[in-house]
Amino acid sequence: MISNSLVEKLFSGDKRSISKAITIVENSLTESIELLNTIHSNTGNAFRIGITGPPGAGKSTLTNQLTKLYRKQGKKIGIIAVDPTSPFTGGALLGDRVRMNEIGQDENVFIRSMATRGSLGGLSKKAIDAADIIDAAGFDLILFETVGVGQSELDIAKAADTTIVVLVPESGDSVQAMKAGLMEIADFFVLNKCDRPGAEQAAAALQSIISLRSHDESSWLPPIVRTVASENKGLDEIIEKIESHKLFLSKNDRFQNRREENSKSRIQEIIKQLIFAEIWNNERTELLNKASQDVVNGSLSPYEIAEKIIENFKSKSV
Amino acid sequence: MISNSLVEKLFSGDKRSISKAITIVENSLTESIELLNTIHSNTGNAFRIGITGPPGAGKSTLTNQLTKLYRKQGKKIGIIAVDPTSPFTGGALLGDRVRMNEIGQDENVFIRSMATRGSLGGLSKKAIDAADIIDAAGFDLILFETVGVGQSELDIAKAADTTIVVLVPESGDSVQAMKAGLMEIADFFVLNKCDRPGAEQAAAALQSIISLRSHDESSWLPPIVRTVASENKGLDEIIEKIESHKLFLSKNDRFQNRREENSKSRIQEIIKQLIFAEIWNNERTELLNKASQDVVNGSLSPYEIAEKIIENFKSKSV
Repeated sequence: MISNSLVEKLFSGDKRSISKAITIVENSLTESIELLNTIHSNTGNAFRIGITGPPGAGKSTLTNQLTKLYRKQGKKIGIIAVDPTSPFTGGALLGDRVRMNEIGQDENVFIRSMATRGSLGGLSKKAIDAADIIDAAGFDLILFETVGVGQSELDIAKAADTTIVVLVPESGDSVQAMKAGLMEIADFFVLNKCDRPGAEQAAAALQSIISLRSHDESSWLPPIVRTVASENKGLDEIIEKIESHKLFLSKNDRFQNRREENSKSRIQEIIKQLIFAEIWNNERTELLNKASQDVVNGSLSPYEIAEKIIENFKSKSV
Repeated sequence: MISNSLVEKLFSGDKRSISKAITIVENSLTESIELLNTIHSNTGNAFRIGITGPPGAGKSTLTNQLTKLYRKQGKKIGIIAVDPTSPFTGGALLGDRVRMNEIGQDENVFIRSMATRGSLGGLSKKAIDAADIIDAAGFDLILFETVGVGQSELDIAKAADTTIVVLVPESGDSVQAMKAGLMEIADFFVLNKCDRPGAEQAAAALQSIISLRSHDESSWLPPIVRTVASENKGLDEIIEKIESHKLFLSKNDRFQNRREENSKSRIQEIIKQLIFAEIWNNERTELLNKASQDVVNGSLSPYEIAEKIIENFKSKSV
């Protein structure tokens, strides 16, 4: 049961209550549903920005600097750092977080690092739930920062109003492959560490890839912002570009449409989680354990077993 | 309906039939189930090797060279290259494939590149189905090559008997983050491009991370193989290490256990696909489209809608 006082304190913007609420989301599906149903009508006001890109591109530094600039404008900022680390390597990225301690002291900055602790599935869902909590607490902006390891950044992009992809000049080849997802989700690019050699060529290469994107007069072509985040260069332009993208979204129902699309993805993901929590009860997990032997021994195909388990689920779930 | 002649030709090792069968897997869920049920008892003989790592590490070159060496041993090789590219950037990695044309001419080498064409979900499942097809066609070895963009490489690791993680000396920082998943899935590491500066430090750093892994006398600690794949250096050692890992697996039911674990993941993934194909019929997709407006307007929470859709699914699915 979610206490009324927790919800009240949350609405008042109390950081400790935000933290508590996110812990609920991390630990209990049932309680988190209750909590999110309770607060839902108080969400939707915060603007959500996704910051992603390959490891080492300087996303943490950028997030840090952006936060400081937004604080000068009086904005309240929530930061959700999504680390899809494993139990084995958990905490590897802790160093980055330490640098954030400074801004984290601010009463109007809330920072939460969310890691998988074992199962990758569900992390993005939890991060989005956490954003709702920070949103309901009256924060103006939510920054999702994800380390660039694939699916989670794509999922987070589906939760953001604006997605910034951070690259560095030497990304080069890596980008070739990583752009797979990244190119598609970028509302704009930040080419960071632009004091390094090859910055201009990298920008030109990036520009030529962007212009391949099918577009007409009414569509948005991702601009490129050059920065040296560690020296605070180019940060103002990022904020400008966020504003122009926001303005672009505000026309012709685009903002509403984007949020509807994001909601659809979110609902689908929630359905996935709920159904799987239900399917994998003890009985069917046991069934799976036994059946996997039959698959390896060749007597039953994985599809035959899958259908058997689905049948069992359906017959017992009504 | 799957024709008997297709299955017969497939069992005889005919490359064109393998290709046809994989196309079925890519395009039709119903037909692919029929096909995979039919061939299942003929699978399980091929040894499956996953080759993964960050973009630019030289995985394609390595796969290429390994294939040539295995051909000298008379082995029949299937290669499944998993490219989680998007429609927008599809084909970006085609250059890599071109280099493979040479070995692809060989009657005893089958190469298939599998891309997502839009939806990331299901690619790994299809790649594993494809491996079954190649396996049933009597090939000795299957190499899964994945570009390092996250979830798909973790999924492929769950389909491999041995997983090789390819890194380069300069991975450095990137590895910090990417190791998230990679460290955990590696049965051994290949440090490629070892003629570059920093190779020894990189190997030492990697070694120290590996030794953090909890282990006892009976467990396998991933070795590191140094290579310069483009100059064909160190390739023999990779094959040696594959053999020692195979030998390790052959003791104490480890091989059987690993395949059972892999089968479990596969069955779970299949269930996911089957259930979602069923959930998202026209009626419920329509329901989702309408409901997403209510979520954005704040009148219903995504959890309330998810529960409504699940209820609808259950009541109509029996």
